[in-house]
Amino acid sequence: MDFAYDAKTEELRAKLLRFMDEFVYPAEPVAEQQLHDAEDPWARPPVLEELKAEARRQGLWNLFLPDPEHGGGLTNLQYAPLAEITGRSPHLAPEALNCAAPDTGNMEVLTMFGTEQQKKQWLRPLLDGEIRSAFCMTEPEVASSDATNIATSIVRDGDEYVVNGRKWWSSGAMNPNCAIFIVMGKTDPDAERHRQQAMILVPRDTPGVQVKRGMHVFGYTDASHGGHAEIVFDNVRVPADNLIAGEGEGFAIAQARLGPGRIHHCMRLIGIAERALELMCRRAISRVAFGRPIARQGVVQEWIAESRVRIEQARLLVLKTAWLMDTVGNKGAHTEIQAIKIGTPIMAEWVLDKAIQAHGAGGVSQDFPLAELWAAARTLRLADGPDEVHRMSLAKRELKRYL
Amino acid sequence: MDFAYDAKTEELRAKLLRFMDEFVYPAEPVAEQQLHDAEDPWARPPVLEELKAEARRQGLWNLFLPDPEHGGGLTNLQYAPLAEITGRSPHLAPEALNCAAPDTGNMEVLTMFGTEQQKKQWLRPLLDGEIRSAFCMTEPEVASSDATNIATSIVRDGDEYVVNGRKWWSSGAMNPNCAIFIVMGKTDPDAERHRQQAMILVPRDTPGVQVKRGMHVFGYTDASHGGHAEIVFDNVRVPADNLIAGEGEGFAIAQARLGPGRIHHCMRLIGIAERALELMCRRAISRVAFGRPIARQGVVQEWIAESRVRIEQARLLVLKTAWLMDTVGNKGAHTEIQAIKIGTPIMAEWVLDKAIQAHGAGGVSQDFPLAELWAAARTLRLADGPDEVHRMSLAKRELKRYL
Amino acid sequence: MDFAYDAKTEELRAKLLRFMDEFVYPAEPVAEQQLHDAEDPWARPPVLEELKAEARRQGLWNLFLPDPEHGGGLTNLQYAPLAEITGRSPHLAPEALNCAAPDTGNMEVLTMFGTEQQKKQWLRPLLDGEIRSAFCMTEPEVASSDATNIATSIVRDGDEYVVNGRKWWSSGAMNPNCAIFIVMGKTDPDAERHRQQAMILVPRDTPGVQVKRGMHVFGYTDASHGGHAEIVFDNVRVPADNLIAGEGEGFAIAQARLGPGRIHHCMRLIGIAERALELMCRRAISRVAFGRPIARQGVVQEWIAESRVRIEQARLLVLKTAWLMDTVGNKGAHTEIQAIKIGTPIMAEWVLDKAIQAHGAGGVSQDFPLAELWAAARTLRLADGPDEVHRMSLAKRELKRYL
Amino acid sequence: MDFAYDAKTEELRAKLLRFMDEFVYPAEPVAEQQLHDAEDPWARPPVLEELKAEARRQGLWNLFLPDPEHGGGLTNLQYAPLAEITGRSPHLAPEALNCAAPDTGNMEVLTMFGTEQQKKQWLRPLLDGEIRSAFCMTEPEVASSDATNIATSIVRDGDEYVVNGRKWWSSGAMNPNCAIFIVMGKTDPDAERHRQQAMILVPRDTPGVQVKRGMHVFGYTDASHGGHAEIVFDNVRVPADNLIAGEGEGFAIAQARLGPGRIHHCMRLIGIAERALELMCRRAISRVAFGRPIARQGVVQEWIAESRVRIEQARLLVLKTAWLMDTVGNKGAHTEIQAIKIGTPIMAEWVLDKAIQAHGAGGVSQDFPLAELWAAARTLRLADGPDEVHRMSLAKRELKRYL
Repeated sequence: MDFAYDAKTEELRAKLLRFMDEFVYPAEPVAEQQLHDAEDPWARPPVLEELKAEARRQGLWNLFLPDPEHGGGLTNLQYAPLAEITGRSPHLAPEALNCAAPDTGNMEVLTMFGTEQQKKQWLRPLLDGEIRSAFCMTEPEVASSDATNIATSIVRDGDEYVVNGRKWWSSGAMNPNCAIFIVMGKTDPDAERHRQQAMILVPRDTPGVQVKRGMHVFGYTDASHGGHAEIVFDNVRVPADNLIAGEGEGFAIAQARLGPGRIHHCMRLIGIAERALELMCRRAISRVAFGRPIARQGVVQEWIAESRVRIEQARLLVLKTAWLMDTVGNKGAHTEIQAIKIGTPIMAEWVLDKAIQAHGAGGVSQDFPLAELWAAARTLRLADGPDEVHRMSLAKRELKRYL
Repeated sequence: MDFAYDAKTEELRAKLLRFMDEFVYPAEPVAEQQLHDAEDPWARPPVLEELKAEARRQGLWNLFLPDPEHGGGLTNLQYAPLAEITGRSPHLAPEALNCAAPDTGNMEVLTMFGTEQQKKQWLRPLLDGEIRSAFCMTEPEVASSDATNIATSIVRDGDEYVVNGRKWWSSGAMNPNCAIFIVMGKTDPDAERHRQQAMILVPRDTPGVQVKRGMHVFGYTDASHGGHAEIVFDNVRVPADNLIAGEGEGFAIAQARLGPGRIHHCMRLIGIAERALELMCRRAISRVAFGRPIARQGVVQEWIAESRVRIEQARLLVLKTAWLMDTVGNKGAHTEIQAIKIGTPIMAEWVLDKAIQAHGAGGVSQDFPLAELWAAARTLRLADGPDEVHRMSLAKRELKRYL
Repeated sequence: MDFAYDAKTEELRAKLLRFMDEFVYPAEPVAEQQLHDAEDPWARPPVLEELKAEARRQGLWNLFLPDPEHGGGLTNLQYAPLAEITGRSPHLAPEALNCAAPDTGNMEVLTMFGTEQQKKQWLRPLLDGEIRSAFCMTEPEVASSDATNIATSIVRDGDEYVVNGRKWWSSGAMNPNCAIFIVMGKTDPDAERHRQQAMILVPRDTPGVQVKRGMHVFGYTDASHGGHAEIVFDNVRVPADNLIAGEGEGFAIAQARLGPGRIHHCMRLIGIAERALELMCRRAISRVAFGRPIARQGVVQEWIAESRVRIEQARLLVLKTAWLMDTVGNKGAHTEIQAIKIGTPIMAEWVLDKAIQAHGAGGVSQDFPLAELWAAARTLRLADGPDEVHRMSLAKRELKRYL
Repeated sequence: MDFAYDAKTEELRAKLLRFMDEFVYPAEPVAEQQLHDAEDPWARPPVLEELKAEARRQGLWNLFLPDPEHGGGLTNLQYAPLAEITGRSPHLAPEALNCAAPDTGNMEVLTMFGTEQQKKQWLRPLLDGEIRSAFCMTEPEVASSDATNIATSIVRDGDEYVVNGRKWWSSGAMNPNCAIFIVMGKTDPDAERHRQQAMILVPRDTPGVQVKRGMHVFGYTDASHGGHAEIVFDNVRVPADNLIAGEGEGFAIAQARLGPGRIHHCMRLIGIAERALELMCRRAISRVAFGRPIARQGVVQEWIAESRVRIEQARLLVLKTAWLMDTVGNKGAHTEIQAIKIGTPIMAEWVLDKAIQAHGAGGVSQDFPLAELWAAARTLRLADGPDEVHRMSLAKRELKRYL
């Protein structure tokens, strides 16, 4: 269990912290104004392209990708502290570094399982930040935490596959730059449980693809993350070469995609929690009620101390998980991956709730980032399966030790 | 402690429940569609006027107002169960009955303290549901839970008063039908603590009134409640007759306005919690995961049972508070008024959170009312002063018994 | 829903409050000293007999029993506030008034189901406070919240019944004055689910009865309540006339016994919580830390306010349950009876935990009653079936409304 | 942040785990029986001496002491995982290894600050496990979390010091083998805040020392840890050479003593939590209710999963704290030392509460170790200062970053 930040990590952290101070934080109000002035509610702010250019120039680009040729060549443990830092400005920093979900997972999939042609056509522009992508997995009609429930069909017809189905919560798909979808569906519903599924590349402009609407989370469209689309695939035809890896490989790809994503999400949440705690402290110092700064009131001190205790614990568990994935693989880190999925969002939600309360009515409004970040943390108790499913699964593994 | 629903209450409940079933619930999808199609984001849906006409026809109108001439002539205890029922459709029912905040409080103020002229000009159209109103109290720069912090000035200048200041969270003020503001400010900053303030009527179209923007709560504009405006009063001049009651009376008016509002809010929250529990049960019955309805899973059963236990307790305390206000007055019910302000929102928030979780990702979206209602309940932990202020005050009174 | 304390209740409350002040509270240190000096760890303090005599003299005797001939002739709603008051001195007051569990339940059973002979032999001395009794239901080997699990057998053999089995948590049975057990067992294991059981009177000194040991609750023997015995019944023979009501009646008797007991337990818990809150307030006022009384520290104020809010809510729900039982019977109050079983112990546990914390290390010790009362409250989350069983059952009833 | 267990740690863990399996766990029922049969309620069970001899033979002796000559020569990080293992049998294992509080802290004090004579007379027999010791710090009359409140006086009189005062919660002092007290008192009440105190060695049999009574924690005497004594020092005279380090050094010694003790306590708590989780799992598998093992019920699975998540997080934070203390010293680990003091007991308390609930009524009784362990965990929320004091202090440090 060696979570120390090694020399490479420290160097990148220093560089990234400087980048945040010099470019990202100053860009926050600019982006907000640009979004406010934009006509297209799904447009990304122009300042973001400047941030991307600068990040790339500085070598802060595609750090998430373990592949040293195209990405940072970093281990999970090396990348985790960088993801945390980007979490402090979650609407700009991850995308500025080309390290934003769901592109990260999609690029990993293409790196691992893509054909040369697929890489050339879709991975290359994704790595260059020229296009964005979506991952179409969850379906409105079924409890998607059980992959056997997937109803979307991918049927071979000559040199093509025909895709039919309805997806939602396809994050990023409302972004005008989103050009390609990775769609999960069933190629063989009669195969055994985990060999029924496949993944296929569907360009967004393919006939039959209908992006119906963006889902809201607590009133937010999450436009800064490209929204969460509901999409109908109505007899959508794509070349057979668009299939990734092969029929029946969908479940395996999904599993491979999962682990690092959890680490990224959780580390960003820790960055979010750190920012919330900082805002809470600053507010507590500056706001006077009943004759003294609220920083001197016991209840607020409890919130601050308890936030620190919880953040520290959560971070260590995520780092341990990253280290485990690096050393024994995703499978060996199964319990920990689930543990951080359960524990981190609830920690962040708690800290954000207290930070909101310390801000008074302003805390729930657009004047502070807290309410929106809260909504993101709350939603992560459901995304990738509700906590309850993960707790059930973790418990069963724990119980097995005594059977 | 007799909280029994008497004959009059039962009769009105039966009538109102029928009205909900026959008119309000069916109007919900209509209103949603109308709002979706409207150009003005602050417009109210036309179907609402139909509901208002029908409610008035049925005698379900202004029930909140104890004054039997213009209102329902009901006690707090008689009105409370009706407010609960309207809470089950909080975007339509309260306004349909002309019982929506902040008009209710404003009409009470005008009934109790208004001059004949003020009543004629503003109370009458409010009672008729022709215009709506706002209450401008909270200010962005100060902790407004302490009334001595109010910075807005109301200065006599000949036959006029000149109002200067900045308000926010003026609920209802974004509604195009909102015609009149009751503004809290200081007429004499040097008077003793609770004699510095006054309230004055400011028509929304008075020169110098600038409605700057609507505040968001967790991504929602709360347009269905007329939003929450930030308003600048820049040398706004109104006739001296627009003052309510007199200089120095502002604090007393605010206190008088407070009690019934708390009852209304809390009873509506209980209605909201009941609706959430119903949705949770229906979802639990209909949704299958891992081979059986989630209604048969222990964790969901815990949520349902615990929700029932909490709702029952909260309702009884609100009813007791209503009964106390009727029998010993607002002052005698001080502890209970604070207790329901503390306990009810947190109860509703808890139930809504579990109902959301039972709905999966859909729960946080626009496809169910849960997330928006959650945001409303969460915000009530801050509105009218954060819980912490109320707990501090309640504790001091408790401690006094032993000093 | 009329929970008002009527004239009779108010009169008895006044009398009882006076009795508490004049006799019970002053007897607390006396009893403690007597117990400390006693040789028999299960002995009851002599001062208790003085309290009993005085209570009887004042007409504060057997108030729990609805039967006006032998008891108080009170409704559940009339008795509940009196039970609350006795809860403030739970080791002395209930027994002083001959209103202590499990005698109360046992006397109710004998009143309702006993033969003349049974009444004469056992009910009479119980009503006179001359002997005490135990109720032998729970068994160590099985989950006793499911009555069909009962393994004790009651087998007819000529003019006798032969009892075999092992019971535990038979409260009161360690008390040297305990003379009679009501034992639940099966007379016909093959009958339908709820007709298998019977109850039978077994004098404690019957050959074959072995009181093995007292169960501890968190280190306490609960000697002040007669302890909680583990008892073996080894071929215990009693006359056939000792059977209560008849073979197969055991389950029905148990159900009839249940409702009022819940009310009593819960109201006493509310009295306990009130005492804990009082102790917390007094401590907070008198204890100085870091230069000011802890009563002025925000966290302690939060505890006090929150305690008040929770106690008020719990009391109202118990009173409503009592009122329901009086008006629509135990069956109509089923949901509420379960709700108070779930909600009240957890409320009392919370208040006691905070009161302990406010007392520092002394709070967990024998110098204050808080730790022992906490253990009692905690145990009530398990007694009569764990919370989880009750929540499951309540949820199922709630869900049925939508099936 | 390298928390990996190095080769030496792994070797000792393996040896200790074997020792637990072969000797400690089998000795648990033996010890229980011996204690049950003993006449002196404070006697330690004879089997413990056998365990001590065996542990010493195996080199599992005084491992806590960093001093390689007399102790294990281990860092905090090396010792921590061993302390965790002893926590799984907290009544026997720590003492069996001569690693039980408060001897550990006292031996550290004597090692660091003792004179040759003091070491020879008291440290030697402590290291040999021949005698035990107590640490007399907390006083009944004052909030002892503030060291300036200490009222005990240590006054020079010729070649002697005269000690006067009253202490309580002097853990270990009820043990008949306890021979020596380290007493904190004031030598100069007028010196600056942290130079008023001194520590002095007082043999238990010195005239004027009166061990008044053992304090209970939730009904337990904690005899297995030598109890918690209240002690009066009435003109107790000891040679001046008994002073440790010098007048005015008491506060500094106390600080030095603190850090490692926190690590030990917290790691043992983690061992306790692990044992509770194991018991919960085993019970859940073996206990059937309503037709299936409770291990298959959702609520119990939630408890198990959540326990695992919380234990993992807590352990990592304690290990990080140990590592920090090893690398940057106690002062640099200040925040973390406080964080584990706050977070670990509350985690253990939570896990134990759920384990108790899973055991039904048996869980609160003497038939399982859970209730007693719960009481220990709960008490650690108060020992060494209540959580609230530590949260306040931690929050102030956090806030300072923004001042």
